[in-house]
Parts: sequence; structure tokens; C-alpha cells
Amino acid sequence: MTTVLKLGGSVVTDKSEPETVDREALDDAAAAIAAADTTGGSDAVGTADSDGLVVVHGGGSFGHHHAAAHGVTDTEGTHDVEGVLAIHDAMRELNDAVVGALQDRDVPALPVHPLSTAHRDSAGETTLPSEQVETMLAEEFVPVLHGDVIAQSNEGATVLSGDEIVTLLARQLAADRVGLCSTVPGVLDADEVIDRIERFEAVADALGASDATDVTGGMAAKVRELLDLDTPASIFGPADLAAFLAGEQPGTLVQRRR
Amino acid sequence: MTTVLKLGGSVVTDKSEPETVDREALDDAAAAIAAADTTGGSDAVGTADSDGLVVVHGGGSFGHHHAAAHGVTDTEGTHDVEGVLAIHDAMRELNDAVVGALQDRDVPALPVHPLSTAHRDSAGETTLPSEQVETMLAEEFVPVLHGDVIAQSNEGATVLSGDEIVTLLARQLAADRVGLCSTVPGVLDADEVIDRIERFEAVADALGASDATDVTGGMAAKVRELLDLDTPASIFGPADLAAFLAGEQPGTLVQRRR
Repeated sequence: MTTVLKLGGSVVTDKSEPETVDREALDDAAAAIAAADTTGGSDAVGTADSDGLVVVHGGGSFGHHHAAAHGVTDTEGTHDVEGVLAIHDAMRELNDAVVGALQDRDVPALPVHPLSTAHRDSAGETTLPSEQVETMLAEEFVPVLHGDVIAQSNEGATVLSGDEIVTLLARQLAADRVGLCSTVPGVLDADEVIDRIERFEAVADALGASDATDVTGGMAAKVRELLDLDTPASIFGPADLAAFLAGEQPGTLVQRRR
Repeated sequence: MTTVLKLGGSVVTDKSEPETVDREALDDAAAAIAAADTTGGSDAVGTADSDGLVVVHGGGSFGHHHAAAHGVTDTEGTHDVEGVLAIHDAMRELNDAVVGALQDRDVPALPVHPLSTAHRDSAGETTLPSEQVETMLAEEFVPVLHGDVIAQSNEGATVLSGDEIVTLLARQLAADRVGLCSTVPGVLDADEVIDRIERFEAVADALGASDATDVTGGMAAKVRELLDLDTPASIFGPADLAAFLAGEQPGTLVQRRR
């Protein structure tokens, strides 16, 4: 069983303060991960089929303001190496905190920095090598990736979001489960958590989006991306992290009806 | 023209003191790199053929004692995540110093951490993705890699040396030139620098090695590896770095006669 877990930037940082880790929330998440049975290891020697947990975290109060200050998005890049490093170093500092919190709970976490491995071509197609992640999983380590800047042809460096990392890894690792833990308890219709989403059209109104207008991200874009995966994905809040890791489907389950 | 330059650990660190950067020597190297015309950029849009400089550095007083303390070599690994991170963090600290010294001289250096991208299979075959490095070069950044620990099947994590990175990248980037800058002025026969090496047998006696006995590394292994490359390689001391970057062939040129 391979699980890709995204810890939203809003979960592990205090978004109201620049570059501030929410240590209590982060330790709670680390404790839930430590308590869960997410043991890796190969299903069979010589196959690429490995078990375990991959953690991906967002930027929260770390990456975003540096990216905004240097005018860098996932399509608009910069060749200013100081700007690239300002964004990368802030995200690396947050990654150090996440890896450290997991290690404090005896989770064998190892950092994987996307700038060191991923790139984009000039059409915006992202390549994220994942064999190093698979090898870490097979050796029972817990790889921890993060939103980052990466080199892009003709653009210098652009942003690779934690959400894009999640969908890339879910596909490449043929993950069994995806979990998105953010500060909302699921996808909301008015104040109610939607239990299950099987078609985008069924929730487009609730998400305030249509195929024509939604190009800017947010929950609607996230749901559409997740519906394109073969892997079932759950969207839930921090209180449900332990339940998700125990195999339950808290919050909203997003899975296209096949 | 793509150049792969190795800065030996002994050049950038004070090997007599644990985890001490030799700031003066490092700044001298950064100044020589800054003064050289190593501008990257694509030869032609849409081809993988890119120009520029890749820097690789060794561990010197940073990585080696942590690796020794945890019994980790390039074939003997560990699953102890604290040991893996102790080695990695020490190397990352040195990499920060090298990237910082280059940036202080306005060289657009970006870190590339092998743990984040490379892995080994159980037979010890190393995979080091290089498209991110090629994209950085095409965008006129200077990627800076370093000896590191990487995940290896059945071993946990093992050491990937700076020298192995150099030969892997020289092949994968089809580099035009390789330079190994260490504290010796070249390959020595008694006290004389050997001008050119075209066959291993011609220097085996001088290197105190034979095909039968040399399995442990050192200069003999380095020369043999370099003779296997299609790329000409120069071995020289810090005083010759500027000359090498200017296109000269200081120290010892290692190139098999074809």
C-alpha cells in the first residue's frame, strides 16, 4: 500500500506570520504519522512495487511571499538567481522543520528537494524523477517533498506546487491512496462536507466554478485534477489525519466513477 | 562548450579541522570561476545541447568523518536515518558555503543535492538524472553538486562520491572538458607532473598500482576512470584553475589515445 499524503501549507505554518512554523500543528501531524502503520519495504525483491508513505508539504507562510516578491508563478519564471534561492531557501527551511518534527517522532524521514531533481520544458510539461523516491520507500524511509522552484526552459525557474507534486507522484508511483490534509474538513457545499465526488459537473455549482471560468486554481481545480487520477483521494482536516492513515475515508472522497 | 569542474574537498575545506571551510581558498576558486567566460545557454532551441559550467565538490572535512562514524561507504550502507542525515546535512552545509561563495562573486549558482535525485540498484549501479542540470545550464545557471548519501536497494543509503558524479555527468552531458582541481598540481611521477596520460599501463608503476591490486581508489583509480571517458580530463592544482577555465590544459591531461 503506497500512500501520498499532502500536508497543506496552512496546516504546518502560521499563515498570518511570515516564515513561522506552527510547531504544535506540525507535531500533531508528525505524531499521527508516527502512530500509523506506514511501513515501507518491497512487496517483492526485484519489482518496482513498493509500499510506504510519501509526504508532500506546501509553502504556507514560507514560499508564497518570496515567490510573489520576485514575480514567480508556475508559468512566469525568473533568471534572477537571488530570487530563485530566496524562494528555495525558505522552502528548504520549512522542509527541515517538517523532516525534523517527523524524526523527533522516530519517523525515518528524508528530504527530497524538487529543485535538485525536477525540471520543466518550454511547454510547461513537468518531469519529476521518482525512482529515488521508490528506492527510499523500498528501504523503509519516508521521503518528504515540498513545493519549490525548478528550472524551466526559456523561463529560468518557475514554481512547482505541492499539489502538482502530489498528482505527479500518485501517477508515477501508482499510489493506492492520496490524502490532502488542509485546514478545511473536506469539500464544502454551503456548510456541509460533501461525502463523495464522482463527477465534476455534480459539484461545479457548489465550488462556484464552471469549466469555462475555472483556470486559476483553488478547490475546483484541485478536485478536477484528483478526478483525473486512478487513485482515490481524500480531502480532510487535521483532526481526521489519524483516521485517514488508519485506512478510513474521512472528509470528501474524490474518485471518478469508471 | 560544457565543462564539468570538480573542486576537491581538500581545496575548499581545511582537512585538519572538522567541518571547517577554507574560506580564502574557496573565494579564490569562486573568483577564478567568476572571471572565466563560462556562460551557458542553449546552442539551439529545442536541442538538449547546452553550454556552461557544472561544479561538483567533494566532502573534505565535512562528509568523511560522519560517513566513517556511521560505517557508510559507497558499497556499505545504513538504514539509520540519523546517520544518513548527519552525513547529508554536513555536505549540505558545505554546499551552502560553495554556492554562497559563488553567488558573492555574481556566479548564478544553484544547489543540486544528489540525495534528492540519485539512487542505486542492488547491484550498485548508480542512476543520476541530469535533465534538471541540462535545463539549469540552458537557462545560464551554474549547478553545484556534491558528494552525498543516496538511497540504495537493500543497503539503505550509501555514499555517492564527487568523483563518481563527475564521470556520470561527463558522460550524460557529453561534456567537452573535465577538470579535477585538487591540492596536487597533477599526476606525479616522483616529483614531476606527468604532462599527458594516454594509457594506464604507461603510468601504473608511477602510481604504485597494477590492474591486480588497485581496487581501493586513490589517484590510480581516478586515472583509470578518466581514461574510460570520451571527454579529455585535466588534473591540476588551485593555482591552475584560471588557466584551465581559460581553455588551457594545465597539470596532467588524461585522454585515451583512440
